[in-house]
Amino acid sequence: MAQEKTVTACLIIIGDEVLSGRTQDANLSFLGENLNEAGVRLAEARVIPDDDATIQATVNECRAAFDYVFTTGGIGPTHDDITAGSIARAFGLPLVRNAEAVALLERNYKPEDINEARMKMAETPEGATLLTNPISWAPGFQVENVFVMAGVPSVMRAMFDGFRDRLAGGRPVRSRTLSVHLKEGDLAAPLGELQDRYYTVSIGSYPFFRNDRLGVSIVLRSADDEPLDAATAEMRQIMLDLGGEPLDEA
Amino acid sequence: MAQEKTVTACLIIIGDEVLSGRTQDANLSFLGENLNEAGVRLAEARVIPDDDATIQATVNECRAAFDYVFTTGGIGPTHDDITAGSIARAFGLPLVRNAEAVALLERNYKPEDINEARMKMAETPEGATLLTNPISWAPGFQVENVFVMAGVPSVMRAMFDGFRDRLAGGRPVRSRTLSVHLKEGDLAAPLGELQDRYYTVSIGSYPFFRNDRLGVSIVLRSADDEPLDAATAEMRQIMLDLGGEPLDEA
Repeated sequence: MAQEKTVTACLIIIGDEVLSGRTQDANLSFLGENLNEAGVRLAEARVIPDDDATIQATVNECRAAFDYVFTTGGIGPTHDDITAGSIARAFGLPLVRNAEAVALLERNYKPEDINEARMKMAETPEGATLLTNPISWAPGFQVENVFVMAGVPSVMRAMFDGFRDRLAGGRPVRSRTLSVHLKEGDLAAPLGELQDRYYTVSIGSYPFFRNDRLGVSIVLRSADDEPLDAATAEMRQIMLDLGGEPLDEA
Repeated sequence: MAQEKTVTACLIIIGDEVLSGRTQDANLSFLGENLNEAGVRLAEARVIPDDDATIQATVNECRAAFDYVFTTGGIGPTHDDITAGSIARAFGLPLVRNAEAVALLERNYKPEDINEARMKMAETPEGATLLTNPISWAPGFQVENVFVMAGVPSVMRAMFDGFRDRLAGGRPVRSRTLSVHLKEGDLAAPLGELQDRYYTVSIGSYPFFRNDRLGVSIVLRSADDEPLDAATAEMRQIMLDLGGEPLDEA
């Protein structure tokens, strides 16, 4: 079997409002799914406060440990939007007013709406590549392997769609899901035995309540179709043997 | 002003299914809010895979850096539930069958439902304190400042409610929220000036779309009522001066 390098990513969610419970993050699940389609495995995520020292330390640790780093949040016009400056300091680069970003904002804002606070959104580390979006126009940016994006989900997605084709990933991982109204503790032994035999397939077990009935979803994941299909067929038989009625899910 | 130590916590969410985007985490926002009420600040959260080395390294880094560490996920009966063993190894403790946990499971499961896989849920690091729950009976556990909980939100909340009174926190932080249909970039300058004067109040700015209208919520947070009320009154006046109609939110 050809051994390919796994391409990894880390997401850094920057925002006091996520840690305080005020805002529910919606970017992690989007990125997890969409990176996977690009052959990149989201290997870790961190939620950190709007704090300069923490942002710098986290970005520097993660950009050394993962192939890609994505950040969300903190690139708006107000005093608590400090991400651009912290990223610049993490890289030891000056924070500059990016001419291309200035032009973008001037083209898309009414002259009376241009003020110092809004022009802060044109500041990037020197030499950064812009990540544009047609929703709010204020751009994100890329420095080396770090992609700095907005926290608002619609804007983050627009930025991601603009650069997703530039990501260099490995083979995408495919998954099959079988759900069944059986108890996890009854499936556990044959499931563990199946996992031992199919070591190239990652098998996860997720209990659920649905329509007041207890059940479990088994998710099988692999970049190789053949063992994935074989393990899924065996899993289905295990469920049938235990008296369950396996249901294929998307 | 009396300077009190801030009591900090880190949440470690353990689960491939959260990183792949299959499952949306619901525990972070619950813990952020409820820890705050207990006077504990959720200072960071990490989402990591079901991987032994990663769990050990993350737990050991975080239990040294924060006052409290909470983990969710990976304590069920299947082969991919590895958290208990990893926590034991992180502390250098043997993983043992906990007599109290065995008794709990035997009391609450039918004899024919007791099997090896389910008894795995009675394994804890030696000397751990159980975190019980009346929903699924399989307990979480505490070792020193690390609280190991289930990933299923209803079960996690039941466990948390069982020990929340044991947490030693500082003074809880109160917040006021004013929402207004103004643009963030127009508020930014007076907002920054307000923050400079009220340095004991943390002021966050969060843009939103609601009923097709752009607006911004300003959240003011402090453990001291007096500056909090004064800063909120000034914020309200700033919004009125800009032609906005500030709305108090819970």
